[in-house]
Amino acid sequence: MTVTAPNGFRAAGVAAGLKSGGAADVALVVNDGPATAAAGVFTANRVQAAPVRWSRQVLRAGKLRAVVLNSGGANACTGPGGFQDSHATAEHVAATLSGTGTGTGLDVGAGEVAVCSTGLIGERLPMDKLLAGVTAAVAGLADDAGPAAAEAIMTTDTRPKTTVVDAGPAGTGGPAWRVGGMAKGAGMLAPSMATMLCVLTTDALADPADLDAALREACRTTFDRVDSDGCLSTNDTVLLLASGASGVTPSAGELTAAVTAACADLARQLIADAEGASKEVAIEVVGAASETDAVQVGRAVARNNLVKTALYGNDPNWGRILAAVGTTSAVFDPDQLDVAINDVWICRDGAAAAPRDQVDLTGRQVHIRIDLHAGAATATIWTNDLSHAYVHENSAYST
Amino acid sequence: MTVTAPNGFRAAGVAAGLKSGGAADVALVVNDGPATAAAGVFTANRVQAAPVRWSRQVLRAGKLRAVVLNSGGANACTGPGGFQDSHATAEHVAATLSGTGTGTGLDVGAGEVAVCSTGLIGERLPMDKLLAGVTAAVAGLADDAGPAAAEAIMTTDTRPKTTVVDAGPAGTGGPAWRVGGMAKGAGMLAPSMATMLCVLTTDALADPADLDAALREACRTTFDRVDSDGCLSTNDTVLLLASGASGVTPSAGELTAAVTAACADLARQLIADAEGASKEVAIEVVGAASETDAVQVGRAVARNNLVKTALYGNDPNWGRILAAVGTTSAVFDPDQLDVAINDVWICRDGAAAAPRDQVDLTGRQVHIRIDLHAGAATATIWTNDLSHAYVHENSAYST
Repeated sequence: MTVTAPNGFRAAGVAAGLKSGGAADVALVVNDGPATAAAGVFTANRVQAAPVRWSRQVLRAGKLRAVVLNSGGANACTGPGGFQDSHATAEHVAATLSGTGTGTGLDVGAGEVAVCSTGLIGERLPMDKLLAGVTAAVAGLADDAGPAAAEAIMTTDTRPKTTVVDAGPAGTGGPAWRVGGMAKGAGMLAPSMATMLCVLTTDALADPADLDAALREACRTTFDRVDSDGCLSTNDTVLLLASGASGVTPSAGELTAAVTAACADLARQLIADAEGASKEVAIEVVGAASETDAVQVGRAVARNNLVKTALYGNDPNWGRILAAVGTTSAVFDPDQLDVAINDVWICRDGAAAAPRDQVDLTGRQVHIRIDLHAGAATATIWTNDLSHAYVHENSAYST
Repeated sequence: MTVTAPNGFRAAGVAAGLKSGGAADVALVVNDGPATAAAGVFTANRVQAAPVRWSRQVLRAGKLRAVVLNSGGANACTGPGGFQDSHATAEHVAATLSGTGTGTGLDVGAGEVAVCSTGLIGERLPMDKLLAGVTAAVAGLADDAGPAAAEAIMTTDTRPKTTVVDAGPAGTGGPAWRVGGMAKGAGMLAPSMATMLCVLTTDALADPADLDAALREACRTTFDRVDSDGCLSTNDTVLLLASGASGVTPSAGELTAAVTAACADLARQLIADAEGASKEVAIEVVGAASETDAVQVGRAVARNNLVKTALYGNDPNWGRILAAVGTTSAVFDPDQLDVAINDVWICRDGAAAAPRDQVDLTGRQVHIRIDLHAGAATATIWTNDLSHAYVHENSAYST
């Protein structure tokens, strides 16, 4: 049920002809309230797509009535015309939702509509098709259409990513409140302050500042620690919409925990479906002087193409891991570094320890543990290997 | 003639059995003087191989009588025993060169012998084979054996890299003085303060401080701007030995120019022979507020796997280039970025300009020009594409 799992939300997913092949490519999520509080985090890339610029501006007011998303085109690097396209899309969503005969009963302004786009950078969207798709999506809104919306935002994803977190005390009639969510993203996947596209919904009651705090903390330890290919997108957006339909006001801690659980579940699904990947790799850095150090070391290893190709080749090449650690400014003594791969400590004190052939890398899940022996902080970065399929997928087509 | 092109140098390259297959794997370069001034720059990686630690220590005195180099093993991450191996190798070179019956007529201490190693990280060297190889190399020293030495340091290189720069006023009997050099390196090729392994020789007269200044400036604008695969080695070393045999003392500017020309020639050969590469890519950043900004932008683009795979696929995907530029902290306005690929300006003002199909990427040489419109500084980074052959070469074997 994804974004429609919490009470107070409807969604739709339709095919508007933006993608060749006729797959669904326009999604709409509507918050029927009673509350419309919202928060968002966006890509740290300084080259930002038009929909990111639009949605960032809209979010300043801390409320959203709807989110419209399209695949089939990123609307990034499209100049002033591209920004006007995002604005026109929001206007059309607002007008159609507010129009007579649509049965929505809503009075929505364009300033309450966020826009997300994903696909090829540098081309304008076919606005006639997109606006017709929005009209169809409004007509198709349903409180069980979350799965259709999740499918409509896919690009090179092979499957939709959705989540539902039941929160609050379990009563006789189900959970007190919920967080639902959907995400897409399979390449250009090294989010910073956000992932590719993600919409989270909750029927909790919360003000925009609490939503913002919960969402930032959740992203910091989930999406921000996914680094599939080191490439930061121009379109990354994570939105959190709260309808308040449950009537429950969770504490800040409860809200953060539930949103973090939803983000962690979606982040794991992103890594599992990354372009061309044959491995899902958790790089756990322990014994760090600070969490910042641990993240820096984990990311340096995650981005090292020689480590990534070795993992693809089932080669426990810990020397490449140490060479990657050595590029960072983290606190450590090179002669005290320990490395375990799938629980075999093949490197102790910066030199060879257990024999390489004790490491079994034939499975899809890989766990690398790096002990810096410099403190008590830890962090885990999730990444993938670098495979022939990745090279093929990113060289054979323009994406 | 490479390192033996300048007067005052002998070299050797022999097969000691460190590599499987019987290829040459031990090289020796000897400076017969009269001077023995030297300088070196080493990897910025904090995990440094034993020979780097040894040679860095030796270079503090500013003089070198000999350099011994081996392929077939990096002697990196090998603990205290690995450092003792480098020390013992230098001792053996010194003793053998100084020994009676070798005909060298030299009196050499281990503290005048630099050691360089390259190959797999994390394994100890077979010292019996290596020391026997050193003995054979001393016996084989010749003033025309520079090419044999250049072949002995190859690993995944498909061809040796050598250079000769004639310097000083051209007289009737040839140049006044010369710089010769050899280098190796095909993967883990993103030097910082040095390239993989490189030995330069000159018969100019110069003191260690002048050699050091010339070498650092030369590396800064040549090897340090090569970034084939973003992976910084544990063993990078560039050495410059001056015999003074020409009797000519060049100015600091003349020395720097000649050393830079030699380094630029070798750097170009490294990129031309990088593992699995099908393209040699020059990323020229212009209009930058500072040279640091230009280098940062060029390197971000050079390290972006989505840019690299697009180039492999002959796809002028400028959107990926802008997304990479956007990850930097350089001064620029995203709406004023221009990008040309092979002289076609496909992006102007941060949006599409000339049609993609005007860009011909079928050749091996690719020139990307990025105009930040933020100042007058420029820099060029040299890189390669990311190909199936790169993935194969780095996943199928442990290197």
